Amino acid sequence: MSESHNRLSSDRDVISELTTGRLSVYLRCLTYLESLQQKTVSSHEMAQRFHLNSAQIRKDLACFGEFGTRGVGYNVSQLKEHLIRELGIDRTRNVIIVGAGNLGMALADYRGFNGNGFQVAALIDIDPNKVGRASRSGIPVLAYSEMPRVVRERQVEIAIIAVTADAAQEVYDSLAAAGVNAVLNFAPVQLRLQSTVKLKSVDLRINLESLSFYLKSAEDGIAE
Amino acid sequence: MSESHNRLSSDRDVISELTTGRLSVYLRCLTYLESLQQKTVSSHEMAQRFHLNSAQIRKDLACFGEFGTRGVGYNVSQLKEHLIRELGIDRTRNVIIVGAGNLGMALADYRGFNGNGFQVAALIDIDPNKVGRASRSGIPVLAYSEMPRVVRERQVEIAIIAVTADAAQEVYDSLAAAGVNAVLNFAPVQLRLQSTVKLKSVDLRINLESLSFYLKSAEDGIAE
Repeated sequence: MSESHNRLSSDRDVISELTTGRLSVYLRCLTYLESLQQKTVSSHEMAQRFHLNSAQIRKDLACFGEFGTRGVGYNVSQLKEHLIRELGIDRTRNVIIVGAGNLGMALADYRGFNGNGFQVAALIDIDPNKVGRASRSGIPVLAYSEMPRVVRERQVEIAIIAVTADAAQEVYDSLAAAGVNAVLNFAPVQLRLQSTVKLKSVDLRINLESLSFYLKSAEDGIAE
Repeated sequence: MSESHNRLSSDRDVISELTTGRLSVYLRCLTYLESLQQKTVSSHEMAQRFHLNSAQIRKDLACFGEFGTRGVGYNVSQLKEHLIRELGIDRTRNVIIVGAGNLGMALADYRGFNGNGFQVAALIDIDPNKVGRASRSGIPVLAYSEMPRVVRERQVEIAIIAVTADAAQEVYDSLAAAGVNAVLNFAPVQLRLQSTVKLKSVDLRINLESLSFYLKSAEDGIAE
């Protein structure tokens, strides 16, 4: 295997989990405004209400210019539908989760992973005691050896790695070989990447650091 | 209870999970550079290597001016230590997790939640069948009625809500009453907030949307 096809994840990937999904942010804002029956919204109002940057909003949505009318703003529902298409969630993409431990089981039933563009087709595990079981919502646990077949037959596009750090590389390579094009990694390890597979790593610790920063700021405020 | 003390989470909170932890991003970049034995780094190099905005970096780190030397850049280790203090993770903050289901159990053993500033002191659950057990790494599951005592005795500063949507509000209110100042919420529900408690909600779906956006872009590229 050539070096370019098997480089160590580094630099960019160190922070890949942190790239902002600004379109997702806008989609959530618009979904919320729609739930309030609001018909139009300006970039200025969006920035104010949701603590975003209005110049960034206009820049990001410039390509959706047809929806932005000077003085009126964007049509909430139209822009929302446009973002849904832009994010590629106007059709359902099948997902598998490798690793049926506590994390995998929790993710299989996670509401945001089932519906509106995504469907968890199966859990995969190497442990014969887990194979044949199902998550609470009924997602079946299949054998690791079944993975290529499941990916092919269910046209799985996204895989979630929820195994231990030492098993993650082997799982990632097998997913790439099976033809999965996008991987969400929960294992705390840097992976050697295959150039054909998009990887996104999740770093839950960032959330705690953000809360700690808030607590620290409050302490400093009291101390002053 | 006054309205101002019990407002519905909305507007800001819709996207509270999305506020960028830029200091956390910089900390990860610096930790990575330190692991490569790199001594100094300029804002330009950081921006290039990690696909960040160099003007934003300079702005964010302007208050750490003493470490930035024109032409040389920042001292990697000094800036890293400074960010650790700034994030308030130069001491350990105790955490409890309410909900000892699959998600709570997985989070209790999550590496990023145990060490370098955080320590999971206990899991809390209402189910008598779970109380008395422990996570794989040995975090004990205590009864819900014990929560105020645990918060007080272990000086718990952060709580994680890993219960079902319908139980989350009651848990949040009890945590506030027990004196917890910061809450990380995994339950898919908007909470009525107490003004004294900082809330951060986790939206794992954003990660899948980001992968879907990548897949969609690749499809469009092929289609063109």
